[in-house]
Amino acid sequence: MAPPPSDPVVDIHTHMYPPSYISLLSNRSTVPYIHQPSDPKADPRLIILDSDDDPARPRSSRGRPVDSTYSSFDKKREFMRLHGITCSVISLANPWLDFLDPESARATAVGINDDLESACAENNASSQHAGLKLYAFASLPLSAPAEDIVSEIQRLKTLPHVKGVIMGTTGLGKGLDDPALDAVYSALATTNTIVFLHPHYGLPAEAFGGPSVIARSGHVLPLALGFPLETTIAVSRMYLSGVFDRHPKLEFLLAHSGGTIPFLAGRIESCVAHEREFIANGGKTQGPQRSIWDVLQTNIYLDAVIYGQPGLKAALEAAGSVDRVLFGTDHPFFPPLGDEEGGKWLSVESNKGVIRSSFPQDEAARKKILGGNAVRVLGLDL
Amino acid sequence: MAPPPSDPVVDIHTHMYPPSYISLLSNRSTVPYIHQPSDPKADPRLIILDSDDDPARPRSSRGRPVDSTYSSFDKKREFMRLHGITCSVISLANPWLDFLDPESARATAVGINDDLESACAENNASSQHAGLKLYAFASLPLSAPAEDIVSEIQRLKTLPHVKGVIMGTTGLGKGLDDPALDAVYSALATTNTIVFLHPHYGLPAEAFGGPSVIARSGHVLPLALGFPLETTIAVSRMYLSGVFDRHPKLEFLLAHSGGTIPFLAGRIESCVAHEREFIANGGKTQGPQRSIWDVLQTNIYLDAVIYGQPGLKAALEAAGSVDRVLFGTDHPFFPPLGDEEGGKWLSVESNKGVIRSSFPQDEAARKKILGGNAVRVLGLDL
Repeated sequence: MAPPPSDPVVDIHTHMYPPSYISLLSNRSTVPYIHQPSDPKADPRLIILDSDDDPARPRSSRGRPVDSTYSSFDKKREFMRLHGITCSVISLANPWLDFLDPESARATAVGINDDLESACAENNASSQHAGLKLYAFASLPLSAPAEDIVSEIQRLKTLPHVKGVIMGTTGLGKGLDDPALDAVYSALATTNTIVFLHPHYGLPAEAFGGPSVIARSGHVLPLALGFPLETTIAVSRMYLSGVFDRHPKLEFLLAHSGGTIPFLAGRIESCVAHEREFIANGGKTQGPQRSIWDVLQTNIYLDAVIYGQPGLKAALEAAGSVDRVLFGTDHPFFPPLGDEEGGKWLSVESNKGVIRSSFPQDEAARKKILGGNAVRVLGLDL
Repeated sequence: MAPPPSDPVVDIHTHMYPPSYISLLSNRSTVPYIHQPSDPKADPRLIILDSDDDPARPRSSRGRPVDSTYSSFDKKREFMRLHGITCSVISLANPWLDFLDPESARATAVGINDDLESACAENNASSQHAGLKLYAFASLPLSAPAEDIVSEIQRLKTLPHVKGVIMGTTGLGKGLDDPALDAVYSALATTNTIVFLHPHYGLPAEAFGGPSVIARSGHVLPLALGFPLETTIAVSRMYLSGVFDRHPKLEFLLAHSGGTIPFLAGRIESCVAHEREFIANGGKTQGPQRSIWDVLQTNIYLDAVIYGQPGLKAALEAAGSVDRVLFGTDHPFFPPLGDEEGGKWLSVESNKGVIRSSFPQDEAARKKILGGNAVRVLGLDL
């Protein structure tokens, strides 16, 4: 039975490679690309990082398998029903559209964003899927000229099911502190378009001791640490370079509860206060003008994809309020590898469990994190 | 007036380059080294990272100045009085003794550790310094053969003022998950020697976008992020490689509240649970056998050098108890750059303030973090 509309459970961190995107990647043979194995029973392989594209291995074992959970709206709805999710705000997974040819980037983005819009509209109009709503974060043609990016941002406001954009940490190729992004940030702020910031590249292998150290524990180091540390560095660079000073209305929703920003915000603040380069008399460069806490509590939202109570408590404390933290699942990543009870996903249950145990007596707080905040922040019609 | 002995304030994260160490570095001309400028009024320069040793700059402007706060016990006591610290557990700052010639490493370590022991003994016996106690974390000759390291660990137990050892993240050169460290870990565990783990190298510049990106904000990125992320990676590698499975009695005190381990522990746990390489049937390698929470609550202590309430709350929550988090200052780093009120150090006041505001009604908890835990964990005689 679907929960009553007053208690929505909204998943704001849930990825899809819709068919048009699968087809885009399948037509490529350099990273990122999808390899279709000759064995019709084998799943296609998704190769999205240079480090996945090891020429010493056959293509059929490079990267990771992409089964239909990545591309099927039916599978997404099945997952939503299983976990009592009433609304999913879907987004492309990495690497989004960062790799496109500048000339065709905008047209491709328009096509894929329109596809997402249509799929959401169709789902929400269908009586067959009553109780399951879909919205989307669109993707930007970041390799295109700035005016193309800006015009796509403006066009997205005409798509009623698009509630923001998802973006990686490279921006136009030089990171999110690139002054050339100012026109994009202005357009995002002016149109009240929230950016869901998500990592992709992790850290260089050297940061972990090199590829052989990484290989000893499968994907744990790049996934568990590389992803959140990439986000931490990207947001710190934005903050330190004054992006939030120049664009005080910019709104970012940070994946994985902000990487580690909630935990390190105090240390960042302290290092800024002790940085000779930033001190007014004799300081050579201008430091950030706003406190990092002010930015966290004005410009930033955090998802609750953190899998632990210490992290969630830090996220809530840094956000300054239970109103700025939003439930998510990271579906279809981290699927069950064994026979979890009732088929439920451990990755989802642990994040739900942490929200429950953090607020054992406060149902209102739990409801905000699980859905109320998403409805308010994204303006969802449920 | 000194606080009564029942309320000690113990600083477990406080560095010194004692005169013998200053002399060791001053006799070197490759990293790490101290440059004595020809101008007698100029402070010596400490050049401890390859990236500090820029041949395009004169030596007199490379690295950072080391004034007498780094080497003077009187300055340490002055700082302690200023901040109401009744006991300091001093340790060399990075890069400790990691760079020594293998042949002479042990003898040098013995000399420097004996110097620290003597300085503490002399201080504690002097009526002139009543109310100010000194203890030390010694340094190990990690470049020496393993048997030399082990014998120094055993010898340190005969020095009554040495209460543990400080160590960086490189171990014998290959990181803390190096199987060659097992003999060292066994000796540490058998002798109940706690390891104060401290970062030094940070992350490769590429992780931040390269040297030119770093330079835009002085030392903020390497210090605010590089240090804690280095610790995070080092401890994760230890955990993933089973160090705490093989050495269940090993005790580590982590600098900067564990880098970001308290925040990311849940994500690490989740990635381990979803790692195909680790899953028993068909898993290629053995994953860690103990839960990361068990390790955090059995083998790990955290300092409270975190400068923010979200971080301290996560540290306390991950530690599972107020008994495993210990006050520290990071003196003489982060000195005041301006005219703070009463000359007090902002970096110290912010950490003290966070402890206060986290436990406004719980004086017992504050006292534990500020000193009681250190007295119990390190066996201090105050």
